[in-house]
Amino acid sequence: MAEITGETRGRYPHFLAIPTRWIDNDIYGHVNNVRYYEFFDTVINRYLIEAGGLDIHNGDVIGIAVETTCSFHRSLAFPDVVNAGLRVGKLGTSSVRYEIGLFRGDDAECAATGHFVHVFVTRATQRPTPLPKRIRAALEKLQVG
Amino acid sequence: MAEITGETRGRYPHFLAIPTRWIDNDIYGHVNNVRYYEFFDTVINRYLIEAGGLDIHNGDVIGIAVETTCSFHRSLAFPDVVNAGLRVGKLGTSSVRYEIGLFRGDDAECAATGHFVHVFVTRATQRPTPLPKRIRAALEKLQVG
Amino acid sequence: MAEITGETRGRYPHFLAIPTRWIDNDIYGHVNNVRYYEFFDTVINRYLIEAGGLDIHNGDVIGIAVETTCSFHRSLAFPDVVNAGLRVGKLGTSSVRYEIGLFRGDDAECAATGHFVHVFVTRATQRPTPLPKRIRAALEKLQVG
Amino acid sequence: MAEITGETRGRYPHFLAIPTRWIDNDIYGHVNNVRYYEFFDTVINRYLIEAGGLDIHNGDVIGIAVETTCSFHRSLAFPDVVNAGLRVGKLGTSSVRYEIGLFRGDDAECAATGHFVHVFVTRATQRPTPLPKRIRAALEKLQVG
Repeated sequence: MAEITGETRGRYPHFLAIPTRWIDNDIYGHVNNVRYYEFFDTVINRYLIEAGGLDIHNGDVIGIAVETTCSFHRSLAFPDVVNAGLRVGKLGTSSVRYEIGLFRGDDAECAATGHFVHVFVTRATQRPTPLPKRIRAALEKLQVG
Repeated sequence: MAEITGETRGRYPHFLAIPTRWIDNDIYGHVNNVRYYEFFDTVINRYLIEAGGLDIHNGDVIGIAVETTCSFHRSLAFPDVVNAGLRVGKLGTSSVRYEIGLFRGDDAECAATGHFVHVFVTRATQRPTPLPKRIRAALEKLQVG
Repeated sequence: MAEITGETRGRYPHFLAIPTRWIDNDIYGHVNNVRYYEFFDTVINRYLIEAGGLDIHNGDVIGIAVETTCSFHRSLAFPDVVNAGLRVGKLGTSSVRYEIGLFRGDDAECAATGHFVHVFVTRATQRPTPLPKRIRAALEKLQVG
Repeated sequence: MAEITGETRGRYPHFLAIPTRWIDNDIYGHVNNVRYYEFFDTVINRYLIEAGGLDIHNGDVIGIAVETTCSFHRSLAFPDVVNAGLRVGKLGTSSVRYEIGLFRGDDAECAATGHFVHVFVTRATQRPTPLPKRIRAALEKLQVG
């Protein structure tokens, strides 16, 4: 396990509860490291859809992952419920860096921390494009001083 | 899509809400058919753990899938919440046939129906063994007349 | 495990080797039942793309799963290589029933058997449409007398 | 997409071919970012099993992920075959840092680069333990000057 960070729930302005699934546990009996990135993708995109109006089916602009990372501090296991905390670390013209903390149930200390960088592109050309206004406004609400 | 069945929520005595994840959607924009079986596995095993005391980490007895099937009636898509209904169709000495219905959000009509047959085996030998009493008692509660 | 069937390699005119992945193993140390359907999806769609010219990105016609089933006869485990056998059991105007057998490495007896029914639909309307000629021709080659 | 790195095939002493699966493509038509970590897990663990004798079912020592990261340079899509290159960047007493490069088919430029840190622990206690000799010897072969 990586060193425990100082990240606490209060550092994340938005949360989503993500119940684990049977298949999340790997042969060693804990949630596989790959799954943590499913949780990242889920808390981020659900926020973009619900708060930012992202249309994943037909919208002209989509977010593409360019860099992700995760540090694993404590194990998770099905049937735990994961509480995924989300904040915005850096907001550029066409890119955003999300910072995520995963907490098991009511734990005060986080099980994992990571970041995820999206570049927004025009779907048809895959070329970078400025963040749509509504998405930018939604992301600004997740910036922490 | 397969023909709509007559299955309604009232035919399932137990329900579990399973939020979809970003990764559940496939290239065609809907939850991939494979994922439905993740939902089956999850509603079944969580019930076995919570109501039946199944110890998936250290217990002597585990359930092994021998047959599964699913009919797809209506599509699902992230970020839908799936409500998974569960009943027990047949309870043998060492095996159980679960019947599952998946409903999208508050829909009255099911999105998918299927069944899943578990044989309980001794973990060490992988040989069939009678269902543990507590698990049997929990499963009897899910039998529908 | 379900009863052993009489299905042998000779009954499948097309094969694809699918190496297992670390994440395929579940907490009980074997490939999770859900993964078998990933193998089904993969052998089918790769054949449709390579032999039938299916354009999954931009084609007007796509295949939608309406029914799938699997019987599990013998366990698989990472790092096994799975050899997926494919034949066509029934070819309708707009639908096809595939029959799949999964074999571990060089095993003569199959680890799992199942079927998968696709209905081909117009992508834009999701309404059934006759199978494109090239796909039909490719599937006819997989029919067994 | 992240900036193209200078990583080439010659920088990785070990390779594993990993065919993509249908389910790897997400709603945007490319292999989802999460899947890249499945490829990392697979090339690493298969090497540990085959070259290092790791017994994932019953061995006393197992590897636990403590940190992973990935930069995405070029997209992948089913049915691409991914060639996963592996080297060892740092070999400690009980930990190892793997460096991975993913190449699409015969591409000279890598599609993604990342690293993965394992700490080896005693399975029963989950406490760090020195790397078993055979695993250490196998990993030393993957160190690049």
